[in-house]
Amino acid sequence: MDSPLVPFGRPPTERADAARNREVLLCTARAMIAELGADHVTMDGLAERAGLGKGTVFRRFGTRAGIFRALLDAEERRFQCEVLSGPPPLGPGGDPVDRLIAYGRARTRFLLERHEIARASFERKGVAPPAVGPNFSRPHIRMLLAQAALGLPDLDTLSLQLASALEGPALLFLVADLPPGGRAAGCAEDDLGALLADGWQTLVERIARR
Amino acid sequence: MDSPLVPFGRPPTERADAARNREVLLCTARAMIAELGADHVTMDGLAERAGLGKGTVFRRFGTRAGIFRALLDAEERRFQCEVLSGPPPLGPGGDPVDRLIAYGRARTRFLLERHEIARASFERKGVAPPAVGPNFSRPHIRMLLAQAALGLPDLDTLSLQLASALEGPALLFLVADLPPGGRAAGCAEDDLGALLADGWQTLVERIARR
Repeated sequence: MDSPLVPFGRPPTERADAARNREVLLCTARAMIAELGADHVTMDGLAERAGLGKGTVFRRFGTRAGIFRALLDAEERRFQCEVLSGPPPLGPGGDPVDRLIAYGRARTRFLLERHEIARASFERKGVAPPAVGPNFSRPHIRMLLAQAALGLPDLDTLSLQLASALEGPALLFLVADLPPGGRAAGCAEDDLGALLADGWQTLVERIARR
Repeated sequence: MDSPLVPFGRPPTERADAARNREVLLCTARAMIAELGADHVTMDGLAERAGLGKGTVFRRFGTRAGIFRALLDAEERRFQCEVLSGPPPLGPGGDPVDRLIAYGRARTRFLLERHEIARASFERKGVAPPAVGPNFSRPHIRMLLAQAALGLPDLDTLSLQLASALEGPALLFLVADLPPGGRAAGCAEDDLGALLADGWQTLVERIARR
């Protein structure tokens, strides 16, 4: 399923120059977003600043939204890498309930911090992508619930519901019509992030209570 | 917010004949969906069967998807009415934790049973509507959590997360590409419904455990 929040397969073999162009383009796009905001990143502007031809940008990303999907893809991979092999409490090694709490906190921050990129990755304004779903969160939550051995029945369903509890509010924030302007959006995002992270912790602590 | 799962305001004053036409059209649409499936309901077919002019159908619903939105709107009102004033355990009067469990069970069934209509209410195929959200579920869950007095902090956030846990999986099912054919879809829907209802009950019981 192609989704801005979920990696879609990169071609397994990528020629060295294509890989280098890709890295240069993503790096440049990141810098432009930080400087100008996502709204001001265009295919032409990106090509010019990266010193590459427009054809290269077009072949690589297809559409403007494709730039942002590729960025999210790269950041999602980095996030998953931290979760799967970084230090505890997010990475392996600690108590599974602590890890579940740390995961939800990190995931909330990840989703909200990237909401501008995620929004720009939609092909049409005001429309959620078809397959934004807890595709990584669900199996990860399921694994941690199993490790924690809490005596819960049907971890398949429960992990789907908890992944929805975790990712659903961030998705609603994503598709909501917010006032434009990075700073105002940034504030709402920080507040919401803290509330959702604490709410997630409450939920997990209650579920894990013996 | 206009959404197929959330009532949007009907004009406060509706002329008697307009109201009657509306009822006839919705009633006819329901019968046609049951007989033929949502895919075979068209503006022309509906007008003919209801014995009304095409102009009336067009003025009332705007687009084909509008028919299904109006149907969902009507059914959502009926559902909310049951929740707000029907008999316990769904309606008022019983233990708030039991009511919370009953609510999740009823809501899951409601969402899944109407997935064909909900899907047909999207203007474009494979695209989720912008504002499908737990708009009724959230305040209702919040109220019941408050009544249950479980010592939980920040019910605003927790009710949002639980509403997402409840409605998110049904929404994923809704936008997923399923094989066509009512019977096959009906099966998947029954199985999923039972699993989600039990999962919701587990979740609530854990949260409410003293």
